[in-house]
Amino acid sequence: MPTPAPARYAALADDLAASITRGTLLPGERLPSIRQARLRHGVSITTVLRAYSLLESRGLIESRPQSGHFVRQRGVSMPARGVAELPMSQPQGGSAAVDVSRLVLSTLRAIGSDAAVPLGSPYPDPSLFPHARLTRHAAAAGRRQPDHAITGQLPPGDPDLIHQIVRRYLAHGTTVDPKEVIITIGATEALNLCLQAVARPGDVVAVESPTYYAMLHAIERMGMRALEVATDPHTGIDLAALERLLRHQRIAACMVMPNFQNPLGFQMPEARKRALVALAARHGVPIIESDVYQALHFGDVPPTSLKTYDTQGVVLHCASFSKSLAPGYRIGWALAGRYRDAVEKLKFLNTLATPAIPQRAIAAYLNTGGYDRHLRRLRRTYAQQGRLMRAAVRRFLPAGTVMSQPMGGYVLWVRLPEAVDSLELYRHALEHGITLGPGYMFSATPAYRHYIRLNYSYAWSPRIEQALATIGRLAARFA
Amino acid sequence: MPTPAPARYAALADDLAASITRGTLLPGERLPSIRQARLRHGVSITTVLRAYSLLESRGLIESRPQSGHFVRQRGVSMPARGVAELPMSQPQGGSAAVDVSRLVLSTLRAIGSDAAVPLGSPYPDPSLFPHARLTRHAAAAGRRQPDHAITGQLPPGDPDLIHQIVRRYLAHGTTVDPKEVIITIGATEALNLCLQAVARPGDVVAVESPTYYAMLHAIERMGMRALEVATDPHTGIDLAALERLLRHQRIAACMVMPNFQNPLGFQMPEARKRALVALAARHGVPIIESDVYQALHFGDVPPTSLKTYDTQGVVLHCASFSKSLAPGYRIGWALAGRYRDAVEKLKFLNTLATPAIPQRAIAAYLNTGGYDRHLRRLRRTYAQQGRLMRAAVRRFLPAGTVMSQPMGGYVLWVRLPEAVDSLELYRHALEHGITLGPGYMFSATPAYRHYIRLNYSYAWSPRIEQALATIGRLAARFA
Repeated sequence: MPTPAPARYAALADDLAASITRGTLLPGERLPSIRQARLRHGVSITTVLRAYSLLESRGLIESRPQSGHFVRQRGVSMPARGVAELPMSQPQGGSAAVDVSRLVLSTLRAIGSDAAVPLGSPYPDPSLFPHARLTRHAAAAGRRQPDHAITGQLPPGDPDLIHQIVRRYLAHGTTVDPKEVIITIGATEALNLCLQAVARPGDVVAVESPTYYAMLHAIERMGMRALEVATDPHTGIDLAALERLLRHQRIAACMVMPNFQNPLGFQMPEARKRALVALAARHGVPIIESDVYQALHFGDVPPTSLKTYDTQGVVLHCASFSKSLAPGYRIGWALAGRYRDAVEKLKFLNTLATPAIPQRAIAAYLNTGGYDRHLRRLRRTYAQQGRLMRAAVRRFLPAGTVMSQPMGGYVLWVRLPEAVDSLELYRHALEHGITLGPGYMFSATPAYRHYIRLNYSYAWSPRIEQALATIGRLAARFA
Repeated sequence: MPTPAPARYAALADDLAASITRGTLLPGERLPSIRQARLRHGVSITTVLRAYSLLESRGLIESRPQSGHFVRQRGVSMPARGVAELPMSQPQGGSAAVDVSRLVLSTLRAIGSDAAVPLGSPYPDPSLFPHARLTRHAAAAGRRQPDHAITGQLPPGDPDLIHQIVRRYLAHGTTVDPKEVIITIGATEALNLCLQAVARPGDVVAVESPTYYAMLHAIERMGMRALEVATDPHTGIDLAALERLLRHQRIAACMVMPNFQNPLGFQMPEARKRALVALAARHGVPIIESDVYQALHFGDVPPTSLKTYDTQGVVLHCASFSKSLAPGYRIGWALAGRYRDAVEKLKFLNTLATPAIPQRAIAAYLNTGGYDRHLRRLRRTYAQQGRLMRAAVRRFLPAGTVMSQPMGGYVLWVRLPEAVDSLELYRHALEHGITLGPGYMFSATPAYRHYIRLNYSYAWSPRIEQALATIGRLAARFA
C-alpha cells in the first residue's frame, strides 16, 4: 500500500482553503465527513485526515468532538486582501440619553404605508412564511379552546409552546429548564422586561456600536443612558474595551446581539461568546442578549448563544418567532437566568397575559413538523439574496462605499462616503418610492450619519435592482 | 275637562318612589315615557307630568333633555333605613410603596389552576361570550390578510377597529377623534402607558380606597407611590378629600374607576364626574380612568365617562374588550387627551405592535352586529346573579357582615367581622376548592384585611350556593 504522496493531501488542503476563501464553504459550515471527502475526492482516508489536520493548523477549520470539522468563524469573515472592509468602530466615550424611537417609528411607517421598495424594512419578506398553515392551526386552537378566560393564560405562558421551545434548544445542544421560559409579546417585551429587571432609570447600559435600535428603545423607554462600546464588524463587541469601561464606571447591564447582529450581520465566534459571559460573571454585570436571528445562519451549524455558556445565570436571553416564522403573532420569550422571577413579575404587570391562541397555533405548527424545512429554505434564500445585494451595492453605490459581510440574517450595513447624510438620502429615496434604514437609528449619537441599512429578504427583482441604482445615483450626487 | 285630582299624581309619584326604593326601577334606568306612563296607569298626560315633576323635586329622578326621565344615581344606592351599609373609607394619610402583584398573581393562579369555584376570579364567566363567532372572524381575518408584516400593524392600531370603537362612543353621546385612539394589549397596557406618560418613579399617585389592583400594579411597575383617598361606596372618590390633598402635596396623577368600580361597584353620579374633571383641570393633575366595565350597567342608560366631561385633555381614558366581549384576545385602548403622542410612543417602545388578527376579528364582529344583544344578555344575567349573590351573603355570612350594592359589573365587596383575616379565609376556602378575592389585593396597606371580593358572573348553582355556605362557616369560625 503506497504511502500517501505529500503533494496529495496538501493539494486537497489548498483546494478546501480556496473554497473557504471564496465563500463556497461558509463560516460555521461543516466540512464533508472523512468518508464523504474520501469518496468525493477519490483519495484515501489518511489523505483526508492529513488535509484536515493541515487546515486546522492553518486556523481555517476546527474539529468538534463527535460533530466533525467546521469552517472557523474567522475564516470567511476575513475579507480577501485588497477589499476594503469596515473597521472596528470607535464610539466617543461617555454615555448618552437616547431618543431614537421617533425616527424609527416614522421610518417604519413610511415602509408600511404604501408600495415603497422595502429596502429600509427591519422585517423579513412575509411572503416566505407559512401563513396558511399557521392560520389553520390558530382556527383549530380557537375552536378547541372555548374557554378564553385569562386565568389559564397567566405568565409564564402556554405549556405546550414552552415545551416546543425547550425542545428546539435541546436539539441545538443547549439545555433549558422549562421553568425558566417566560412567553412575551415579541422579543420587544422580553428585552424591556429584562432590562427593567436589572437596571433603573438613569443607569448606564453598555451596547454595541452600532447597535440594534431595539436595544436603544428599551433604554429610552426607561430613561436610562446608552454607553456605546467599540465593536468589530466581524467578531462583535470589543471585550478589552468593555472590560476597561467596566473597571472605571458602574454599568448596570450590557445589551448585545451575538448572532447576525443588526445591522452588522456578524456571528460572534464561540470563544468570544464564552469570554464575554465570563467577563460579565466576573464583574457581576447582567448581559441581555437578543437572539432573534439565531435560526437564520448561513453556515451549516446553528450558532450557540451566550446562554449556552452561562453557568452563573447572568445572561438574560431574549428571542422570538417574529423573524423566522410568524411576524404578526407577536410571540417572543425570555430566559432570564437568576432574574427569572423578577422578569415574570414584570411580565404580569406589563401586559398581564400573552394571548393564548397565537401561542397554541405556533406550538401546534412546531409539533406537526415542517419548521426546519421552512428555515432551510429561508436561509438558502437569504444567503443567495445577500450575495446579490452585495454585488448590486458594489455595482451601483459610489466609490468609497464599504459594506458588511453578513454571516446570517437579512440586512446589509453600508458605509457611504462621508459627505452623504443618510437622512437626506432617505428622504430623497422616499420621493422615488424607495425606503432605506438611515444610520441615525443605530446609535444615540450621529456617529453613523453616513451609513445605511439595506434589507435583502425580498425576492431579488429588476425593481429592487433599479432601486439600488437610484440610491447609488442619489448618493453620488450628495457625495 | 276635570282638573287632575291632586291625590292622583301624588299617588302615582308614591308608587314610582316605592319602585325606586325597592329596586324595581334601578339607578340610571329610564322611566316610561309620558305617553307610555299615561297608557300604563290610565291617567292623563298632565297627571304623569306632575308626578314626574314631584319625583324630581324629591331628588329621586332627573329629566335629561331629549332623553326622558331617569332614576337618579343616588336613588337606589341609598339603602333602606335600618340596612347596614359600607361607610366612607378612611385611609391612613401618607403615600406607600406598592407590592401587591405577587399576592394577586398567586390568587389568580389558584383560580385558573383547577376546577375551583371561581368566586375569587376577577374575570367574567367566559361561557357567556360569543367565542365561536369571534373565532370564525379571526380565521377569516387570517385568510384575508396573507401579509403578516408588522409594518402594517404599528401604533396607533387597526383602522377598522378604531372606527368601530369611535362609533360606539358616538352612539353613547361621546365624540372621540379617531386620531386619539391607541390600541393596546388589554387595558393593562393602556393603564401602564398612561401612567408612565404622566409620572416618574417615586412620584405620588392618588387612588380610590379600596382601589382596583390594576391601578396598584401600574404604580408598582414604575416604582411610584400610592396615596389612597377616602372613597364613598356609592358615589366614589371624596372630592373634598382629594382637593385637600392636592393643595398640600405634589400628586403626579390620579387613577380612578368611575363606572362600577372594582371592588365597590358604584357608579359615580354624573355631577361628580364633571366636578372631578374640573378639579383635575384646576390643579393641572392628569386623571387616568379605567372604564373597562362601562358596558355592564344595570340601569337602562349607559353611563358616561370622565372623558365625556374633559375639555382640557387632562383625562387619560383606558378601556378594553376583555370584560365584555373577548377575554382572551387582550385588546384594549387608550384615549390619552393631551398625552396622546407620549402614550403612542410608549406603546411603540413597550410592545411595538398589537397583533392584527384579534383586532380585525373584533372589528368584523362589531361591524356585523350582535354586540348590543350580547351585552343586554350579559347585563341582565349579571344584575340577576348579583341579587342572588347578595341574598346568599345575607343568608350565609356571619352577623356583622356588610356588603356593597353594585350598580353594574359582576363583583361584590364584602366586609366581614373584624376578627376575620381574609388571607386566612382564602387559604382555608382553597382547601375546600373555593376561591375568593382577599381584601389585601385592593390597597397598598392592610386596611381591607377583613374584606373579600366575590365574583357573581358565573351561572348561579347549588355548587356556588354551597361554596357561600362553606365560606360563611369558615368566616364564623374565625369571627
